[in-house]
Amino acid sequence: MRILVVNPNTTASMTALIGECARAVAGPGVTVDAVNPATGPASVESHYDEAMAVPGVLAEIAAAELAGYDGHVIACFGDPGLLASRELAAAPVVGIAEAAMRTAAYLGRTFSVVTTLSRTIGHTWELARQYGVADACAGVHACEIPVVELETDPAAYAVILAACRSALDRDGSDAIVLGCAGMADLCQRLSAELGVPVVDGVAAATLEVEKLVRLGLRTGKRGEFATPPAKAYA
Amino acid sequence: MRILVVNPNTTASMTALIGECARAVAGPGVTVDAVNPATGPASVESHYDEAMAVPGVLAEIAAAELAGYDGHVIACFGDPGLLASRELAAAPVVGIAEAAMRTAAYLGRTFSVVTTLSRTIGHTWELARQYGVADACAGVHACEIPVVELETDPAAYAVILAACRSALDRDGSDAIVLGCAGMADLCQRLSAELGVPVVDGVAAATLEVEKLVRLGLRTGKRGEFATPPAKAYA
Amino acid sequence: MRILVVNPNTTASMTALIGECARAVAGPGVTVDAVNPATGPASVESHYDEAMAVPGVLAEIAAAELAGYDGHVIACFGDPGLLASRELAAAPVVGIAEAAMRTAAYLGRTFSVVTTLSRTIGHTWELARQYGVADACAGVHACEIPVVELETDPAAYAVILAACRSALDRDGSDAIVLGCAGMADLCQRLSAELGVPVVDGVAAATLEVEKLVRLGLRTGKRGEFATPPAKAYA
Amino acid sequence: MRILVVNPNTTASMTALIGECARAVAGPGVTVDAVNPATGPASVESHYDEAMAVPGVLAEIAAAELAGYDGHVIACFGDPGLLASRELAAAPVVGIAEAAMRTAAYLGRTFSVVTTLSRTIGHTWELARQYGVADACAGVHACEIPVVELETDPAAYAVILAACRSALDRDGSDAIVLGCAGMADLCQRLSAELGVPVVDGVAAATLEVEKLVRLGLRTGKRGEFATPPAKAYA
Amino acid sequence: MRILVVNPNTTASMTALIGECARAVAGPGVTVDAVNPATGPASVESHYDEAMAVPGVLAEIAAAELAGYDGHVIACFGDPGLLASRELAAAPVVGIAEAAMRTAAYLGRTFSVVTTLSRTIGHTWELARQYGVADACAGVHACEIPVVELETDPAAYAVILAACRSALDRDGSDAIVLGCAGMADLCQRLSAELGVPVVDGVAAATLEVEKLVRLGLRTGKRGEFATPPAKAYA
Amino acid sequence: MRILVVNPNTTASMTALIGECARAVAGPGVTVDAVNPATGPASVESHYDEAMAVPGVLAEIAAAELAGYDGHVIACFGDPGLLASRELAAAPVVGIAEAAMRTAAYLGRTFSVVTTLSRTIGHTWELARQYGVADACAGVHACEIPVVELETDPAAYAVILAACRSALDRDGSDAIVLGCAGMADLCQRLSAELGVPVVDGVAAATLEVEKLVRLGLRTGKRGEFATPPAKAYA
Repeated sequence: MRILVVNPNTTASMTALIGECARAVAGPGVTVDAVNPATGPASVESHYDEAMAVPGVLAEIAAAELAGYDGHVIACFGDPGLLASRELAAAPVVGIAEAAMRTAAYLGRTFSVVTTLSRTIGHTWELARQYGVADACAGVHACEIPVVELETDPAAYAVILAACRSALDRDGSDAIVLGCAGMADLCQRLSAELGVPVVDGVAAATLEVEKLVRLGLRTGKRGEFATPPAKAYA
Repeated sequence: MRILVVNPNTTASMTALIGECARAVAGPGVTVDAVNPATGPASVESHYDEAMAVPGVLAEIAAAELAGYDGHVIACFGDPGLLASRELAAAPVVGIAEAAMRTAAYLGRTFSVVTTLSRTIGHTWELARQYGVADACAGVHACEIPVVELETDPAAYAVILAACRSALDRDGSDAIVLGCAGMADLCQRLSAELGVPVVDGVAAATLEVEKLVRLGLRTGKRGEFATPPAKAYA
Repeated sequence: MRILVVNPNTTASMTALIGECARAVAGPGVTVDAVNPATGPASVESHYDEAMAVPGVLAEIAAAELAGYDGHVIACFGDPGLLASRELAAAPVVGIAEAAMRTAAYLGRTFSVVTTLSRTIGHTWELARQYGVADACAGVHACEIPVVELETDPAAYAVILAACRSALDRDGSDAIVLGCAGMADLCQRLSAELGVPVVDGVAAATLEVEKLVRLGLRTGKRGEFATPPAKAYA
Repeated sequence: MRILVVNPNTTASMTALIGECARAVAGPGVTVDAVNPATGPASVESHYDEAMAVPGVLAEIAAAELAGYDGHVIACFGDPGLLASRELAAAPVVGIAEAAMRTAAYLGRTFSVVTTLSRTIGHTWELARQYGVADACAGVHACEIPVVELETDPAAYAVILAACRSALDRDGSDAIVLGCAGMADLCQRLSAELGVPVVDGVAAATLEVEKLVRLGLRTGKRGEFATPPAKAYA
Repeated sequence: MRILVVNPNTTASMTALIGECARAVAGPGVTVDAVNPATGPASVESHYDEAMAVPGVLAEIAAAELAGYDGHVIACFGDPGLLASRELAAAPVVGIAEAAMRTAAYLGRTFSVVTTLSRTIGHTWELARQYGVADACAGVHACEIPVVELETDPAAYAVILAACRSALDRDGSDAIVLGCAGMADLCQRLSAELGVPVVDGVAAATLEVEKLVRLGLRTGKRGEFATPPAKAYA
Repeated sequence: MRILVVNPNTTASMTALIGECARAVAGPGVTVDAVNPATGPASVESHYDEAMAVPGVLAEIAAAELAGYDGHVIACFGDPGLLASRELAAAPVVGIAEAAMRTAAYLGRTFSVVTTLSRTIGHTWELARQYGVADACAGVHACEIPVVELETDPAAYAVILAACRSALDRDGSDAIVLGCAGMADLCQRLSAELGVPVVDGVAAATLEVEKLVRLGLRTGKRGEFATPPAKAYA
């Protein structure tokens, strides 16, 4: 089984980190390849960034379909291009926000999301509503660390840890959901220190794709997610 | 006052039609210019089409901001790029789906949407939920005419009229919302024959922008819709 | 085009203020007349006040229909008599609460309402739910100034300004909605000082009616909002 | 214990019928008096009728409070004036729509409402949402018999019976809710013939008031439902 | 009329207290018997406790049906076994959580629940959603007194009173709902001291059953709540 | 890794079938053991059956925890005992209804549930609401085959196939969810004939547990799902 993990931004070091975290949980016999688009923004922190990242994501998905991948992960917490990818691909496609939040729903009544910048909070709530987990989402909290500084800021871990603690206290929640692919490598350490389950969407989405592939389940193609009609392009 | 209407697809004849319908309702002293992106799909009928149209829409919005437009309309019923445009622009931005559905909410308890292809029905319901009009939306009905054939298919009007009649009967609704910018020119004729209010989003959004400009209201910029952070692009 | 603005209470000075604010935004060629019922309470601050004000509102709407007005505004934030007015009138009718809250929905993800007395908070939330903007409404905050003191209390502006600031801080919202017609004249000054969009329902509803009239849209009359059946009256 | 049942319309024969049905279920030692306003419409079948009936309802409630009644029923399925009555009265006030629909919620998963004119269907759904029973309400069905003809139309019972049967078939519901006070006397006969529980709001609300009085429960007065502020009246 | 009140736990002193509180409100001619299962947990404070208590509850309901009781109350705030009891019994069955929360909905816009242990808060919210009162429920607050200590802890009343005061302040609610059958005897004293309506579910459910019986209403038996199919048991 | 699959009913042949279907999808190195309680009903088709099956389910979960299983599946579409099991177990617990419906949410916009008896439809909708997939659930359809006849009725497959086809037509959905563990073995054949994804909860839940275990995720224990307090038992 071959799974493609697409990092929607163009920061290669983050792509490497994401690939590592995905491979760390993939089952025996599962190959995980992590890629990012050739062009696009270095990080995704706004609706604009998302919009500009999506064509590159779709190009990667289309290429991976031709290359015979069995499933795809979109590894950015806004799940950019998810529905378009489901149209394009025969293989299943899973976003890390939907995977993280739905996975957290198996672990208790409520979870808190800890994310990067506060400007993304509204979008996260919108996704929670779309994915049916708004009642389970007890709070969305920003640590105000830009995505690209997650890897370089020496204080990042401590700030995120503090944001998690504060979220658990204020929300009375059962679990933490990490709201950025760039936090994937912190998951186990945070969980150990906090003593609560911490869900990283990269790992969760990778195993969700693996699960769907093993179940023989692919996107339903009889309506909204049929292959997009061919179009003339100007 | 200058309002830009962006047709997200690249079919110039549809851009012309949309511009005409917008100008037909604009107030005295209001200039309406209709444009479409230089590149992108000839019509938008899928999530994929939408994703590929958005960068072009954003480029038009950005250019129009520099050119000093007072407000912007996104003239495709999926409202592609709406939130990203709100980040980019200082001037207000209105999508035709949100404008059409919210305008219909002033006309009665419920409305029915009549749209082009059935594959867009799920997305329309999702928009209705996001815009808070899901309880008011009594049904979404497809007439199965592709967008680009709305102008050329001689049977289009009759098929759409029949779809509206059937929708009103089945849904018991108070009004019709047209689910495609390409139907804008049919609005008055349909309303006259059906004897119910029929809302075209192009006209509704143009006047909504005019209304916001006259009220001095622009997108709030203190959080989610602040100007997007500058980014390195690969 | 002639638009009637009905102030549901019987305080003539407030009617004058409301008329002025409506006229300030009305388009060229639009005549706005502001009236209030001959009988009824001096202000509307309870369900009881609303109930007692409604027959007077309906009498004004009925008279204005006979006089050939093209549209009507109900200028009290509880939208008293709105649905009954839609039955009575052929012309469109818009309430200032629905107009203010739906207009704010074009300006960002969320808004905060700042209103007069805390006893109206529950009703405002109920309206937000009915109008489909409950998810967008981040908070409803009272400044505890009675309606008739808005004009006379020299501290009113400062108290309202402080309530707006506090609301923005607590709610993290993108815009303010003023929850009383008697605050209409404070809108621009508040917006300038707060640096966020502030929506006054009187202005918003006036332009919404103007928009509907220009679009040729009137209340759908095939069901709930058909002219009320004639009745014997004891 | 003395309970006042207010019939909001001015049709004395209906007031008599309502009083009889309320007295038929009242407990030992409970006096039920049925009244109607001195002025107002002969029946309530529109938002306009409701608005015009409410001042009369409130006058009856106010008088009954002075007369020392222990609780009040508003006996019209739109619950006109309910919230204003709760402000006015120290004693509890119950509407027949809220009582009927909440009572039905104890009898199974879902119920169907059978009402008079189809123009009231939208309002009934709105009440169902306000009262929290929208998920339990499987359908609202009109029998198209005007309120005042319920007593005189010899076919009324048969038409209502057929509407109930059809509702149960289409909705798969567990119970019927009668959507008009004028159907109160048909309740037992319908239940016997249909073999399902049939809830009449007049009886349900009367016993709900009796229940609240025996529990010593009155409307909470610390906020929205405090006595309305005194007002100058023009 | 004979009403059975089942205390789902096996603490006889609590059963006695519950029976007393139920009898204190029952109408003339109504016999109330309080029982508890022969086996099961001493108190119900977890999903596990609930699950283990339910078979005993169902045995009591089944026995009471044979004994000809006219209605049944399940007197534990989680309403354990409620739906299964509705299948088993021909007579109506009411849980104290549904009765308390729906009764509170007649008393104002919102209520606050004050319960025992914080671990039950999530379940209470879930019930509020199921019963359609989530919008009316302004908060759920724990006083952290275990169920069996309600009777013995001399500080219990003061702690609960303080929790009620704090809940009213934080939630701005109109009424209190007591979230445990073991608090039934505190209801009047709390209401007197707090000056707000306080709803005890034991009393509310007892009178709700009495109400249903007097109305001749029983669980609908044409679908989900038909007598359970007979089963082979291992 | 060892996963326990608990069949809540006591029909050994169904336990065998469920175990086989779970093992068919389990990954390399994963041992799946299927058990059923020693006592309880032969099938679960009512709330009563569920209630009577739960203590046996909990006993199996408790025993499996002692035996060191890494995760647990509850293999009955009502997810009986799920929350109590999460309290009891340190290892993660997944129900087949939640797993099936959430898995289907990755495959398109909507799914249809095809289940056994129509009396379970209401409960399935309630679960869909609790699991946040009510908007995604386009319909719940019964084939009216009792659970124990799924294995023996030679017409069962054809009836279920027809119910699936009818559901897809009526609902316009993207996928089918099988609403009974006893249909697990039909999943692939149905999917092949229908040409749409068909989700069996037994397989989905088994792989969900495997996924959680590999992610190192267990139920959060800081609140509602902490180990139940020890209790005296009568």
